[in-house]
Amino acid sequence: MSLSPFDSALYGSLFADGEIAAYFSDDAVIASMVLFETALASAQARVGLIPLAAADKISERCRDFAPDPASLAVSCANTGVPVPGLVKAIKAHVGGDAARYVHFGATSQDVVDTALVLRMRDVIATLRLRMRKIIKSLIALCQDHRATVMAGRTRSQQAVPTTFGLKVAGWLMPLVRLDQQLAISAQQFLRLSFGGAAGTLASLGQAGGKVEEALADELGLTVAEMPWHSQRDIIVDLASKLTSLTCAFGKVGQDLVLLAQSEIAEVTLANGGGSSTMPHKANPIAAEMLVTLARFGATQMSHLHHAQIHEHERSGTAWLQEWLSFPEIVMACGKATSLMLSLLGNLQVNSGKMRENIDISRGAMLAEAATFALSNHMDRDGADALVKKAIAQSQANGSSMFDELPKLTDAGVNWDQVRDPANYIGMNDTYIDRVLGAAQRALAEG
Amino acid sequence: MSLSPFDSALYGSLFADGEIAAYFSDDAVIASMVLFETALASAQARVGLIPLAAADKISERCRDFAPDPASLAVSCANTGVPVPGLVKAIKAHVGGDAARYVHFGATSQDVVDTALVLRMRDVIATLRLRMRKIIKSLIALCQDHRATVMAGRTRSQQAVPTTFGLKVAGWLMPLVRLDQQLAISAQQFLRLSFGGAAGTLASLGQAGGKVEEALADELGLTVAEMPWHSQRDIIVDLASKLTSLTCAFGKVGQDLVLLAQSEIAEVTLANGGGSSTMPHKANPIAAEMLVTLARFGATQMSHLHHAQIHEHERSGTAWLQEWLSFPEIVMACGKATSLMLSLLGNLQVNSGKMRENIDISRGAMLAEAATFALSNHMDRDGADALVKKAIAQSQANGSSMFDELPKLTDAGVNWDQVRDPANYIGMNDTYIDRVLGAAQRALAEG
Amino acid sequence: MSLSPFDSALYGSLFADGEIAAYFSDDAVIASMVLFETALASAQARVGLIPLAAADKISERCRDFAPDPASLAVSCANTGVPVPGLVKAIKAHVGGDAARYVHFGATSQDVVDTALVLRMRDVIATLRLRMRKIIKSLIALCQDHRATVMAGRTRSQQAVPTTFGLKVAGWLMPLVRLDQQLAISAQQFLRLSFGGAAGTLASLGQAGGKVEEALADELGLTVAEMPWHSQRDIIVDLASKLTSLTCAFGKVGQDLVLLAQSEIAEVTLANGGGSSTMPHKANPIAAEMLVTLARFGATQMSHLHHAQIHEHERSGTAWLQEWLSFPEIVMACGKATSLMLSLLGNLQVNSGKMRENIDISRGAMLAEAATFALSNHMDRDGADALVKKAIAQSQANGSSMFDELPKLTDAGVNWDQVRDPANYIGMNDTYIDRVLGAAQRALAEG
Amino acid sequence: MSLSPFDSALYGSLFADGEIAAYFSDDAVIASMVLFETALASAQARVGLIPLAAADKISERCRDFAPDPASLAVSCANTGVPVPGLVKAIKAHVGGDAARYVHFGATSQDVVDTALVLRMRDVIATLRLRMRKIIKSLIALCQDHRATVMAGRTRSQQAVPTTFGLKVAGWLMPLVRLDQQLAISAQQFLRLSFGGAAGTLASLGQAGGKVEEALADELGLTVAEMPWHSQRDIIVDLASKLTSLTCAFGKVGQDLVLLAQSEIAEVTLANGGGSSTMPHKANPIAAEMLVTLARFGATQMSHLHHAQIHEHERSGTAWLQEWLSFPEIVMACGKATSLMLSLLGNLQVNSGKMRENIDISRGAMLAEAATFALSNHMDRDGADALVKKAIAQSQANGSSMFDELPKLTDAGVNWDQVRDPANYIGMNDTYIDRVLGAAQRALAEG
Repeated sequence: MSLSPFDSALYGSLFADGEIAAYFSDDAVIASMVLFETALASAQARVGLIPLAAADKISERCRDFAPDPASLAVSCANTGVPVPGLVKAIKAHVGGDAARYVHFGATSQDVVDTALVLRMRDVIATLRLRMRKIIKSLIALCQDHRATVMAGRTRSQQAVPTTFGLKVAGWLMPLVRLDQQLAISAQQFLRLSFGGAAGTLASLGQAGGKVEEALADELGLTVAEMPWHSQRDIIVDLASKLTSLTCAFGKVGQDLVLLAQSEIAEVTLANGGGSSTMPHKANPIAAEMLVTLARFGATQMSHLHHAQIHEHERSGTAWLQEWLSFPEIVMACGKATSLMLSLLGNLQVNSGKMRENIDISRGAMLAEAATFALSNHMDRDGADALVKKAIAQSQANGSSMFDELPKLTDAGVNWDQVRDPANYIGMNDTYIDRVLGAAQRALAEG
Repeated sequence: MSLSPFDSALYGSLFADGEIAAYFSDDAVIASMVLFETALASAQARVGLIPLAAADKISERCRDFAPDPASLAVSCANTGVPVPGLVKAIKAHVGGDAARYVHFGATSQDVVDTALVLRMRDVIATLRLRMRKIIKSLIALCQDHRATVMAGRTRSQQAVPTTFGLKVAGWLMPLVRLDQQLAISAQQFLRLSFGGAAGTLASLGQAGGKVEEALADELGLTVAEMPWHSQRDIIVDLASKLTSLTCAFGKVGQDLVLLAQSEIAEVTLANGGGSSTMPHKANPIAAEMLVTLARFGATQMSHLHHAQIHEHERSGTAWLQEWLSFPEIVMACGKATSLMLSLLGNLQVNSGKMRENIDISRGAMLAEAATFALSNHMDRDGADALVKKAIAQSQANGSSMFDELPKLTDAGVNWDQVRDPANYIGMNDTYIDRVLGAAQRALAEG
Repeated sequence: MSLSPFDSALYGSLFADGEIAAYFSDDAVIASMVLFETALASAQARVGLIPLAAADKISERCRDFAPDPASLAVSCANTGVPVPGLVKAIKAHVGGDAARYVHFGATSQDVVDTALVLRMRDVIATLRLRMRKIIKSLIALCQDHRATVMAGRTRSQQAVPTTFGLKVAGWLMPLVRLDQQLAISAQQFLRLSFGGAAGTLASLGQAGGKVEEALADELGLTVAEMPWHSQRDIIVDLASKLTSLTCAFGKVGQDLVLLAQSEIAEVTLANGGGSSTMPHKANPIAAEMLVTLARFGATQMSHLHHAQIHEHERSGTAWLQEWLSFPEIVMACGKATSLMLSLLGNLQVNSGKMRENIDISRGAMLAEAATFALSNHMDRDGADALVKKAIAQSQANGSSMFDELPKLTDAGVNWDQVRDPANYIGMNDTYIDRVLGAAQRALAEG
Repeated sequence: MSLSPFDSALYGSLFADGEIAAYFSDDAVIASMVLFETALASAQARVGLIPLAAADKISERCRDFAPDPASLAVSCANTGVPVPGLVKAIKAHVGGDAARYVHFGATSQDVVDTALVLRMRDVIATLRLRMRKIIKSLIALCQDHRATVMAGRTRSQQAVPTTFGLKVAGWLMPLVRLDQQLAISAQQFLRLSFGGAAGTLASLGQAGGKVEEALADELGLTVAEMPWHSQRDIIVDLASKLTSLTCAFGKVGQDLVLLAQSEIAEVTLANGGGSSTMPHKANPIAAEMLVTLARFGATQMSHLHHAQIHEHERSGTAWLQEWLSFPEIVMACGKATSLMLSLLGNLQVNSGKMRENIDISRGAMLAEAATFALSNHMDRDGADALVKKAIAQSQANGSSMFDELPKLTDAGVNWDQVRDPANYIGMNDTYIDRVLGAAQRALAEG
């Protein structure tokens, strides 16, 4: 397992997303911290706080500096953060006079938080690219099945007809909404963390403001109003959007698992896991995993909210709580996006079975439609009573309600039209047009 | 208790906020559902779907219709929702032909969700009014204590000096951010829920779109792209903002509890709970409660994210999960706002004690400042060594580092200036100006 | 709503269990606290610490003393606990010299915790009585359906045959286990909480030990090794058992919701919620509610574990966290037991449909059985290949695998026997006997 | 990071416990699954189901078979479980006829669950050995500080005196209780998981029962009444005990963080993380980490309870939820035990500072003691009034209440005795004796 299935060579292919995982590897973490230290020296040289030559030497020596993560482990255990060990290693690697200008005036949390922000910039870009693909794919699926009639189900029971196109639109709309919200949250998240020991930057004397600005410029980040060491709504906001996305995928997964049940069989998940001794089985692995990841992500969100409760200027407990859940939240969302893409590429929609399953109700799913049709010929109470009688007879006879209705009344209803569920799908086309419009606008806006 | 302390006559005054609670009383819930039904009839009459006279009669009869909640309980238990019983009661109360036009084409979730949206509109308005007061109050507190020096604390240890003004700015900034985000989330939340049995509005035939528009207009809500019966990112987004707020208040509460400890005593919470047998105690009730509410809200958020995983068109499990946590999330945030207001009104800041506690480190908290000062007169390594020696001597002698330094060097440092922590607060004034600027802009924009 | 649906006159019938709720009413809470105070005075008189006459007067005056909960609300808000207000009210009610002996040497947490223990003693007794009924009912259901063959389902797909009897045994076994564990946890929970201001009982001087013993005796509780004010593993242990029970019921609910789906229809939940416009629907309200309660309870458990992290001798935050989740955990379990009883009384098992659904696989569910049967006549690889071929043909022809097999081989297999799923249920009878044995032993032991 | 800090080469030394981690390495997981397959073949040979030669060959070939975890990854991703790939690899490695007898009649969950049980047997043994050390260490610490007087604190305020010995006893008692409960839970957990495809063992024909018994015997496990594939109370029970332990350690960590605050300084955590620029700081890393791990574990428990809600005979979602949280729960507890041991070895108790901090209240912490003492000389109301007056004067004068009392009364009270907090620690010695007794009995029983 390697403790977390996300990190396991055995389980990782099932649980983890390699592209996202790369941003959380020890090497990537260290590289992003080294980048911070290099940029800090450059910024400090730009504003004249440290010698330009020192900054240049730091930059040059650090360009490919990739210390072995294990070599920093003891220091990390002793100090509770990976930074002192890394700074020591950088200083040793830089050597000479320049070494003393490494990490000048910064605190560990500046490094760790900013390094996370830098990596998340790329992670979010990756996720949003995938979101575009998923949204495009769902648009196509929705259009293809705009007219594919199926049973609408509420409280796990067949209710009235709907279309698979609308179901897909219902999967799509939250993704469009959340993708746009994610863009905003990401924007707010991409800010420098820089405050020094207790968030006053006193160690930089008069130069604090200028260094802050130059450093943000070096890294392509914005400057926060003040150090956000203990203002974790920023990280929670991003995590919350990612988790809502994961849970929106979880809803899709749940629907697919249910639709793929042996007895319902309205979709087939072509690359489902097979069973050698049970050839009739096609386990909906990817769909199930979407549910699993959603429930996992949902749980971790509570941990992150708890971690908003920092003590004083910087907390040694709450901050570390984040480390145990934030990467997991990102990965759950990342893996969900790649599973979703793979699912959509392997989804077989069984329109015939969808139509067939509607008949299980022996026409009763269209009772309302029948009542409306009859209402043009008699009062509503009479129509109601007639339909109820027809249903009772159909259940007794094993026939359809629509076989019984003409026996009970000679009202001039076009029963062939009424019994066709495709004629009782209400606003679906309008809804689909609206959702597709919103999705296409979102794609256009990027 | 009445199960939840929020609902208890005994505990309610401690846990609940009466103004918010009023929106979740049975009577308020029923009234908002009756309002939906009335507006639905009016909308349907406006577009010619039902007789104007019927809508008028429904409106008139429902104006003050307030059935006893208990009278609807049996139906609620049997049907799993309060709506069928309520509709029956409304029909009986309306009487005659008009009765048949009550709840025409709607489903229970349309009523329950929209009724919640309507009440939340007022709840959010209430909360945002309080947020203005809290923000104003924190602005004033921050300004008053811009120059109040105190120990900055990281990992529960004294680190370097800061100001109480900056600490307050650090409480304020997340509130400003979250208040603005709440305004956006609220905007997105205030949408009609209307889709009929399985979200197709088929029951309204061709009139669906017009009724939807007219109904939204009647209620002052926007129309969603499609029914959001099973798209719960909308409710999660709002809840997430409220919980982030609650947790931002929790951080304030945690800081205050810590600052009010007998041994630290940097703040006094004037209306703290006393103890008859322990006259020296002033329990920080309100501050503790902020932490309690934050941890409670953090936990409930995971429940809401789980509840995003709806099955099919409407879920009978996930939807009801929301009922058990969403009101609690709102109340936790609501109570936190009122506690925060009360706390700020009763907060006594002990500036003298803040200054005094800095001396616990015998000057070591300013070691960095001393090193900088000495660096003008010798190389950095020499300065470092000197300061370390002074600290060692001060600990041996029970003196201050600043008593020892002049003994160790005759470098022309103005020690009186260096030993004053007020001269080592870095960017605090700049930070405070930025935060106050952001807060005031937020107040101006509303 | 009254905030929590558990407390609502409207929703309460759906969510709450009246019998359990009664133990958490304000009146019940107050009565149990008054009982503590009376017993404390009696105990103190028994050991000679206070005058017997005073204890007698306290007892007599408190016998029916039931102050209005609302009258204690202001004090509760001010002091953060309901006890000081109650003690004041009791003293006023007792009057005279005796009043001063009320609450002598005790602290609020002694009263609140012990009062909870006293009420939980009755709650647990109630729950365990219900558990007996549920266990008996499941034993009968299991016996009735020992031979009712149905599809075993794994990963939401039909796998191989099983029996409904074994499914019921699988519901039953955790209940038996948890009921026995609950008995042990309850035993450990029923202990006096008594430690005075900071858990030293110093206020009682030399008499502490004797009072503690006498008070435990008065209340029928055991004495803890030391005050457990901040040792909350005790309350978590009980809550954990209750929540595991709730989740075990949730699994039953989930199974029933799935089995009751329109397309599967293997059970009918006779008192399911109907829909006036959708006469074919029978919403599985009670089964869904079991899932909802389980997910709610699961979430609250994390809150209780967080609340183990008390600060020092007594925490003002963690303790109050319990108040917001422990009653809810108890109610979730309580309501689940009553829903379970009601479900079992209304469960219609559709054996015919169970048998029918097996045929969906066209015999493939018995592929393994066929392979085994053929293995007696050829090598395993040959048997495998033959079965796979038969399945392929059956899917092409719309026939059963068992129609194809005799066409492919003249091996002397008794196909009528092999194709009967009742002949491929393995160890089910043995398992059922073991589970029923364990259940019956548990009932016998009580 | 390697996603989880538990798995990181960089962070692992801070977060993870190597000894525990070893049981969750991919190699250990695979080895335990290979062990299952070997034992299965042996058991089946013992009862005559498969040839003895085949079982022998499987045993022999598998003795050191350790396939590269990465080589099984693709199969794991495709089938959703690591078993099919492993079985294929084992078969290839065994070769020949014997290969076909590998994994005969078993299902993936049998292997994965039993392999977890086998590893947990060793993990629990490791944890319980550490618990013995921790308990012994706390017994010694408690004895050493039986008479070390300090301020008892409630609601984060100084309340009345207590002893550090009693505080330690309060840490110890839950550990004793939970260690004993863990022993029971472990006993119940160490059971074979074996049920075949859908928990009927049909694949083994008549031999099922015998194989089950022989397999349990091979592995040293007990036989469950029936397969517990979807009865997850068993795993939740164990996890719940581990998490309660983690949270009990979290309470210790929280106390130590608070006691180590710069201003309180009643303990020094000798190996705390230092800061190069802040020589006065000693970050309480290990104590903070105990809180972090507790909050993390608390959160994961809700995920495990959710995962009790399996669908049907085996769930593809709930089961995988466990994989994401159970190892983490074990690690959180494991790391907490090793941190606790290290903390206890480096804890410096500052008795002098403890005594000194009591004086912050200027005697008011002993108001109750003074009142009692005076009550021997006047009525209680008079004593009360006198003490209050003395406190008021002491606050005005900056003196101690005990300086003022003799000025206000000439009652013959031995004030020197009363003002000594060591004389007002109530039942502490008795409590300590009881707790130590319980701890020593637990050690003796093992």
